[in-house]
Amino acid sequence: MKALQDKILADGIVLSDTVLKVDTFLNHQMDPVLMKEIGEEFAARFGKEGITKILTIESSGIAPAIMTALKLNVEMVFARKRKSLTLQDGLITSKVYSFTKKEENEISVADKFIKEDDCVLIIDDFLANGQAALGLIDIVTKAGAKVGGVGIVIEKSFQNGAKLVRDTGIKVESLARIHSLENGTVTFVEDQIMVEV
Amino acid sequence: MKALQDKILADGIVLSDTVLKVDTFLNHQMDPVLMKEIGEEFAARFGKEGITKILTIESSGIAPAIMTALKLNVEMVFARKRKSLTLQDGLITSKVYSFTKKEENEISVADKFIKEDDCVLIIDDFLANGQAALGLIDIVTKAGAKVGGVGIVIEKSFQNGAKLVRDTGIKVESLARIHSLENGTVTFVEDQIMVEV
Repeated sequence: MKALQDKILADGIVLSDTVLKVDTFLNHQMDPVLMKEIGEEFAARFGKEGITKILTIESSGIAPAIMTALKLNVEMVFARKRKSLTLQDGLITSKVYSFTKKEENEISVADKFIKEDDCVLIIDDFLANGQAALGLIDIVTKAGAKVGGVGIVIEKSFQNGAKLVRDTGIKVESLARIHSLENGTVTFVEDQIMVEV
Repeated sequence: MKALQDKILADGIVLSDTVLKVDTFLNHQMDPVLMKEIGEEFAARFGKEGITKILTIESSGIAPAIMTALKLNVEMVFARKRKSLTLQDGLITSKVYSFTKKEENEISVADKFIKEDDCVLIIDDFLANGQAALGLIDIVTKAGAKVGGVGIVIEKSFQNGAKLVRDTGIKVESLARIHSLENGTVTFVEDQIMVEV
């Protein structure tokens, strides 16, 4: 997605070979026009999958997810994230390990919001090690529903999450795919292919 | 706001004299069309205040805030909420006590996102005891910026937050104002006034 790539190049800050800071437009401050375009792009890419619900995880997934939900005219649910969760009735939970924070969180969704006949589109801001996406897929599976796809704003293709999720056979669409952050420079997968050709 | 009141009456669940559950459309599952209408309503009510930025707090404030930001064509920032925060440079913080969870959280915003010449509209899903709203006002004040207003989706007018925030002289607009949840019934402020007349 060109507008997103341009924004990453203009405003993203490469903090290390693995960390890209995009807090000016995606995960702290948010650009609403870009969020709307992202929602429209996801809706276009998953428009034929029969999506009945959007699932994301708090907090940075919410804005792209609500914009996608608006365009697809379906409701959106966000999973809650907590270090430890007291046992509660009516919750579907999954454990998600955060490599960044080096801690395990439990994520949860009220079971009344995902039904067996749902076809769920999972949306998240980043795909790195894939733990959040796999946790959300686990929740949809436990609900007996179908995962209609996974939509990611920024995929760090050099980490193993993208492969892990694609290996499940689920359709993954990432709006920006980063091949490398080496030498303080963002290289997208498409650019890399062009170079190789 | 009629559509919101109708939704509260149709889908809200009164759990006690003080607790209204609206997780089917506002703070767990979200209705994107209603969120868009809420954003348009806030934009209409604060359109003449010279708003340059929207500030909310994760997680349930994000969807109404991004829709308001889209309509007003300004960027949105959400404050992060943590039990304890390691001291970090570049953050403006405030302490917020949660009466529901009986714990104090620190909320924070990167200082680069609120500047002295900003006129900030604060958006949140609920106004009950007012602690979150007052914490967000504190952050804007510490940044040296102006609070252009506070927009609340659901105000529980029988708790003291609405008065606390209005007493600061800041313009507060709540799209649904709940007078009482007694006897398992939602009574709006407007209905109450009609009864008294």
